[in-house]
Amino acid sequence: MPDHPQQLTDLGENALIRRLTRHLPVSAEQVELGAGDDCALLPSPDPTKWQLFKTDCLVEDVHFTRDTPPAQVGRKAVARTVSDFAAMAGRPSSFLITAVLPKDLALDYAEGLFQGMGRAAREFQISAAGGETSSSPGGIMLSIAMLGEVRKERCVPRSGGKPGDAVFVTGRLGHTLAGHHLQFQPRLEEAEWLSANFPIHAMMDLSDGVGADLPRLARASGLGYHVTWENLPCRDGASPREALEDGEDYELLFTLPAAQAARLQKRWQDHFTLELTRIGRLTEPTTNSETHEGSQRSGGFDHFAQP
Amino acid sequence: MPDHPQQLTDLGENALIRRLTRHLPVSAEQVELGAGDDCALLPSPDPTKWQLFKTDCLVEDVHFTRDTPPAQVGRKAVARTVSDFAAMAGRPSSFLITAVLPKDLALDYAEGLFQGMGRAAREFQISAAGGETSSSPGGIMLSIAMLGEVRKERCVPRSGGKPGDAVFVTGRLGHTLAGHHLQFQPRLEEAEWLSANFPIHAMMDLSDGVGADLPRLARASGLGYHVTWENLPCRDGASPREALEDGEDYELLFTLPAAQAARLQKRWQDHFTLELTRIGRLTEPTTNSETHEGSQRSGGFDHFAQP
Repeated sequence: MPDHPQQLTDLGENALIRRLTRHLPVSAEQVELGAGDDCALLPSPDPTKWQLFKTDCLVEDVHFTRDTPPAQVGRKAVARTVSDFAAMAGRPSSFLITAVLPKDLALDYAEGLFQGMGRAAREFQISAAGGETSSSPGGIMLSIAMLGEVRKERCVPRSGGKPGDAVFVTGRLGHTLAGHHLQFQPRLEEAEWLSANFPIHAMMDLSDGVGADLPRLARASGLGYHVTWENLPCRDGASPREALEDGEDYELLFTLPAAQAARLQKRWQDHFTLELTRIGRLTEPTTNSETHEGSQRSGGFDHFAQP
Repeated sequence: MPDHPQQLTDLGENALIRRLTRHLPVSAEQVELGAGDDCALLPSPDPTKWQLFKTDCLVEDVHFTRDTPPAQVGRKAVARTVSDFAAMAGRPSSFLITAVLPKDLALDYAEGLFQGMGRAAREFQISAAGGETSSSPGGIMLSIAMLGEVRKERCVPRSGGKPGDAVFVTGRLGHTLAGHHLQFQPRLEEAEWLSANFPIHAMMDLSDGVGADLPRLARASGLGYHVTWENLPCRDGASPREALEDGEDYELLFTLPAAQAARLQKRWQDHFTLELTRIGRLTEPTTNSETHEGSQRSGGFDHFAQP
């Protein structure tokens, strides 16, 4: 990092977010858990639950290009956000849409975006509560703001990992741009089942590649990690490096006590055809110092990395 | 409107929104009141309240230009959204920020945006619960997703107007680009007091000019309206036409039974120094057909009007 950062790429995404968010007030009465996890946790009038609150955006020429079928872009905008609710073992209920659209956009394309968002809303049994359109002097931007809830005792943040925990991922990883990034299934049911039946210590969804996201989970838990990278479950056509570095897997990454690992693998196979792979363990922070910016060590996607 | 609309500007904003949102499912269990009012109303675990949910965005070169001090842009992004909570006589509690930022943006400018949002959060006693940053291939886009609540019996939608209701506005209108659009005060306290002390039938905040917004309120109530336009309270330097057509007043527009008008004006003066002006009345729909697109008749800002 330069001594005197001048523009956003001088910092990188994680440092930039820390720099910007220090200006923002957070009251413990209004927010239980703020920036840094898959969803924010807010108090609920129901004392047995947390509210979950999340926004996620798709920017043209950053997250998708105009040659992508618009219904797939719309579905992805909603499904990405739903995946963050799975990551907390919660369920979404409603969302608002912000659609920033070029004035000369083809009406068919705009309708395709909304058809895709509508299809996803039906698929995940959530309601569109409204939103906003604005004209855009540049490209398309879709942002989804989503609300939901989780029972307090079932909620799994990133920060609960313990030394010695076994680290698991669902499904297979990498080679996501071949189609998976538009067709993925948020793991709502799997996350709910895990949280209901096992002492899951920490969980997140894989959006930036396990090589970037596992260091984040470990850092949130104040721990290090050890992974046998060659054991990563590679999607058909993916190299081990792609399984490590490609973003947009939208699989679950979670930890639980190592003593529970064998029982989990047995019971999982009775319930799901989806694969489940033990990829490593959490360690004491002193035995592994990989708690710095994951993007620099392990690939993954950094919005504000230097070119 | 062309017989076969091809691009967004062939439709205009209101028709476009109707066209797009028909693809979106809404369940009555998940959403009490969806698109079309200042905020969405959602069920709350507390049966005496509704949750309020709203998003609002600022797009560079649509809503602001880069020569605007960034702290003022940031404050405006939050304050605009807060104004929608005032319009329902509610209070916000927390928000998420979506910041889409060019990679070469000056760090000082980005920090200024967040300083402004932080200042507004403290001003309105709300918490930043997190959010997201993305790079932008074009300009800056800030979107605020905000949550809050309102007691059910205090909540004032746009749709409750009755024939004969007196129509009021707070403050003075027009000439907003001279500074008001960056310095306005959301009318949280005034709206709460109105709703607690008078049978307010319908209310909204003025964002697109009373000439566009009053037709919307009347249409939502299934009514017409009669206004003595020359009675509009003009801001210093504003012509009557500007008071009618300029957007971004962020004042309250509301209706109540005409029989309450005199008592309201008396009690208002005892409580507030802000002006309150009776500008007209709601009418039966048959006596006035001005329930079509307000933007075409009365000015105001339409994001997807033909150039």
